Amino acid sequence: MSYQTIGLAAAILTTSAFLPQVIRVVKNRSTHDISLAMFVLFCTGIFLWLIYGILIKDIPIIIANAATFILATIILIYKFKFK
Amino acid sequence: MSYQTIGLAAAILTTSAFLPQVIRVVKNRSTHDISLAMFVLFCTGIFLWLIYGILIKDIPIIIANAATFILATIILIYKFKFK
Repeated sequence: MSYQTIGLAAAILTTSAFLPQVIRVVKNRSTHDISLAMFVLFCTGIFLWLIYGILIKDIPIIIANAATFILATIILIYKFKFK
Repeated sequence: MSYQTIGLAAAILTTSAFLPQVIRVVKNRSTHDISLAMFVLFCTGIFLWLIYGILIKDIPIIIANAATFILATIILIYKFKFK
C-alpha cells in the first residue's frame, strides 16, 4: 500500500466519520452530550485547514476539509438549536 | 500571516477541540448523543493519519494526530462504558 493510499484512506475516514454524528443529531434532535466548545474550536480549525489547502493549492486538503466543515457546521447549528 | 502559521493554528484548533469533549463525557458519564460510528471511523482515520505522518516523516502530522488519537480514544472508551 502506497503512502498516498494510506493518506487518502485516512482523509476519507476522518471526513466521513462526521456523517453518522450528523444523522444522529438530526434524527434525535438532542445534543446534550456534545460539547459546544469542541465544535466551535473544530469548525474554526477545519476552516483554517481549508484556507491552508487553498493557499498551498492542495486539492485533497481542500476537498476533505470543505466536506468536514459542512458536516461539523450542521452539528454546531443543531447544538445551538437543540441544547 | 505565513502559510505555516495558518496550518499550525489549524492543527492546534482541530486537536485541542477534543479536549472539552473529553472533559464533558468524563464529567457527565453520559455519551447518549455521541455517535459510536463517528468515533470508530474517526479513531481509525486518525490512526491512519498517524501512520501516514510516520511514513512521510512529518513531525507536525505525527504530533497532532497522536494527541487527537489519545483524546478521541478516551471518548470512544467512554462511549462503550457509558451508553
